[in-house]
Amino acid sequence: MIKVQKKIALILSGCGHRDGSEIAEAVSLMISLGQAGADFFCFAPDMNITPIDHLTGEPLTNGEKRNLLQESARIARGQVKDLTELKVSDFDGLAIAGGRGAATHLSNWSSAGAKATVLPEIKRIITEFYEAEKPIGAVCIAPTLLACVLGKKRITLTVGTDSEAVAEVQKTGAQHVPCPADDFITDRDHKIITTPAYMGPAKPFEIFKGISGLANELVEMS
Amino acid sequence: MIKVQKKIALILSGCGHRDGSEIAEAVSLMISLGQAGADFFCFAPDMNITPIDHLTGEPLTNGEKRNLLQESARIARGQVKDLTELKVSDFDGLAIAGGRGAATHLSNWSSAGAKATVLPEIKRIITEFYEAEKPIGAVCIAPTLLACVLGKKRITLTVGTDSEAVAEVQKTGAQHVPCPADDFITDRDHKIITTPAYMGPAKPFEIFKGISGLANELVEMS
Repeated sequence: MIKVQKKIALILSGCGHRDGSEIAEAVSLMISLGQAGADFFCFAPDMNITPIDHLTGEPLTNGEKRNLLQESARIARGQVKDLTELKVSDFDGLAIAGGRGAATHLSNWSSAGAKATVLPEIKRIITEFYEAEKPIGAVCIAPTLLACVLGKKRITLTVGTDSEAVAEVQKTGAQHVPCPADDFITDRDHKIITTPAYMGPAKPFEIFKGISGLANELVEMS
Repeated sequence: MIKVQKKIALILSGCGHRDGSEIAEAVSLMISLGQAGADFFCFAPDMNITPIDHLTGEPLTNGEKRNLLQESARIARGQVKDLTELKVSDFDGLAIAGGRGAATHLSNWSSAGAKATVLPEIKRIITEFYEAEKPIGAVCIAPTLLACVLGKKRITLTVGTDSEAVAEVQKTGAQHVPCPADDFITDRDHKIITTPAYMGPAKPFEIFKGISGLANELVEMS
């Protein structure tokens, strides 16, 4: 019997936790999906943003813009496509890395919370994976995208233990379960797996443990 | 008995394999050093460079410059200091991530090979760790820095299997051992551990395995 390698679509939103994908979360997904026996294929939005200086936390004021597809290519070693090219029928599951990019570029959750508007392509992709009954894994703040799109389905997820984030998630209709960085939450009915990663203070090996658990579940359920 | 957490200095050279540190290599070091029971502390040069578009492989032609300390902060989540602040007496061991940054900014190996000039601060740091008999781990192309500084000591290292890179390494006096991405080479006499990672085609989980092995040895020898 030939074992077919599962294919997971992996959504990035730039390169760096303050204005893009959290780098260790994205890499942990890549490593652990491979360890779980799956291949990953990266996608990101073709969108220009004002970069944040990751030393100071302040926006760069020199007028420089960066493109999220180009910057995501730093993590993906060039192998990343525009979100519009993501066909759900090509994949067995979906994974979304966290980082502030997910809450400022893929939606405006950072400023609008439960009333956030989700990028149309992200809404399409999440809806299509859900309707195809293919599993979705989301890391850190990325579960808020699932809350915005699927909250009314009463999905269960985690964004860790931050009370403000939890309160906003619950306003969407989603059910929240607290979880530490090195663990994950599975909603088997809706095929949704989430882990808080850097929603609170954590070390890389701790978030890797949580994300590895998520990746194993994602591949198993796909 | 209180177990003292080992402290490893981790050198980065930007953020992205074409003009900085290879991201998955840097993150793999961070995860696996933590798994091995060590803390890591990041350092990078305060130096401006012309960025490379990681989608096309071509330099950006808009005149934009990026600072390697600022960009390294994307991987290090803001926790990175200038190389000049690295005091060898504060640490038990040294790790250097790969990526083209290590061969274009930390030295000019990319263009000069065995005749490369190493950044004075990098030469100082490698020499001081070596003379203090503290272990040094280097990933991917970063072992060429060790070859340039310590080649005459007849250290043993790997840069994988690329015949051109191997030939240049051997010109420095260093002894080369071929090695696949998921393994590593230890020179116990000189306390040097190296792994080829992305010197050839590899998947993230494969380079993670090689780097995990390197991190375990590094912490054990420190």
